[in-house]
Amino acid sequence: MHQASHQLSVATRGRGLYDVTPDVAAWLAGQAVREGLLTLFLRHTSASLVIQENADPDVLRDLESFFATLVPEAPGRYRHSSEGPDDMPAHIRAALTQTQLSIPVAEGRLALGTWQAVYLYEHRTAPHTRRLALHLIGG
Amino acid sequence: MHQASHQLSVATRGRGLYDVTPDVAAWLAGQAVREGLLTLFLRHTSASLVIQENADPDVLRDLESFFATLVPEAPGRYRHSSEGPDDMPAHIRAALTQTQLSIPVAEGRLALGTWQAVYLYEHRTAPHTRRLALHLIGG
Amino acid sequence: MHQASHQLSVATRGRGLYDVTPDVAAWLAGQAVREGLLTLFLRHTSASLVIQENADPDVLRDLESFFATLVPEAPGRYRHSSEGPDDMPAHIRAALTQTQLSIPVAEGRLALGTWQAVYLYEHRTAPHTRRLALHLIGG
Repeated sequence: MHQASHQLSVATRGRGLYDVTPDVAAWLAGQAVREGLLTLFLRHTSASLVIQENADPDVLRDLESFFATLVPEAPGRYRHSSEGPDDMPAHIRAALTQTQLSIPVAEGRLALGTWQAVYLYEHRTAPHTRRLALHLIGG
Repeated sequence: MHQASHQLSVATRGRGLYDVTPDVAAWLAGQAVREGLLTLFLRHTSASLVIQENADPDVLRDLESFFATLVPEAPGRYRHSSEGPDDMPAHIRAALTQTQLSIPVAEGRLALGTWQAVYLYEHRTAPHTRRLALHLIGG
Repeated sequence: MHQASHQLSVATRGRGLYDVTPDVAAWLAGQAVREGLLTLFLRHTSASLVIQENADPDVLRDLESFFATLVPEAPGRYRHSSEGPDDMPAHIRAALTQTQLSIPVAEGRLALGTWQAVYLYEHRTAPHTRRLALHLIGG
């Protein structure tokens, strides 16, 4: 049994979902772990993680439309406004989704379902560099 | 320290919450782990996991009513409609709840609170077979 | 590689967010783990966990306002009402946030981002004592 850690940087182009599965899988492929647990932890509070369908890009568009309606950029609604009208909605969207995901590793690969991908969900309108802490334990 | 993996299949009868705690606990009971961490990972994007109260079934009914109102099946609202009117709401409900849960193991048992159960939350209206990847590490 | 477990009790003063980062960090500091994974599991279904910004307290106020509007205490709306008008909203808020968080440990410390803190989110109006199961694995 052993463990490994890594930090992944993801450059976003503003609000939207970014598939990080290939980057995570590439790092995992270089580790000598056949069975284990891989944890992704996002070190930010205005972006988040979600597992969603990887087939129809309309799923991601509909998901974004849903959150844009549920958590509107509404001037005057939020006390926290000094970082821009998109910042407080970003914190709320992050609370409603995930900051961390742990995925079992089987036969050296992420045990995702056929239609699953791991997305970094950027909630800010401007591009950001997001840091993802990875931790792997297994053997 | 050692680890074990397992796949659980859950046959759902359509939308609703299914208590998987007994199945998970039964598998755990067969492993020689007194202290550790058990991870459940659902390999689907139109169902999810939640921990909820196991006492009053009205809690589960109210939870379902809340999600049915928050994420309605609204023809014309979603671009992604080819898999039926319940599919895109199912993806959104999954994003709002959990795909993965890790539960500490103490004295050989899940360290759940007295009133907690682990539910597989089926969001599709039709019955589905759902696969849950389990991973246990400990000693 | 070794592991350790601990139970943390948090006395809340009713609805609101309570920063548990110092308590968790203090326990971690006493363990001989440089690299690993720390899991927090809340043993309740009417409170939850969130990672949020630790800088501007208005973020926490806006978050609470959002949830109070999204999940109102509405007499007659919920079947489950025997434990008070705030109990069913508390269960829904818990389903929408987290019951569990796993955070990588690097150089003996939680690998949180600069602006991140771990909050116990009390959803009931009355004070409660909340139990948090901690599990640490690493070396």
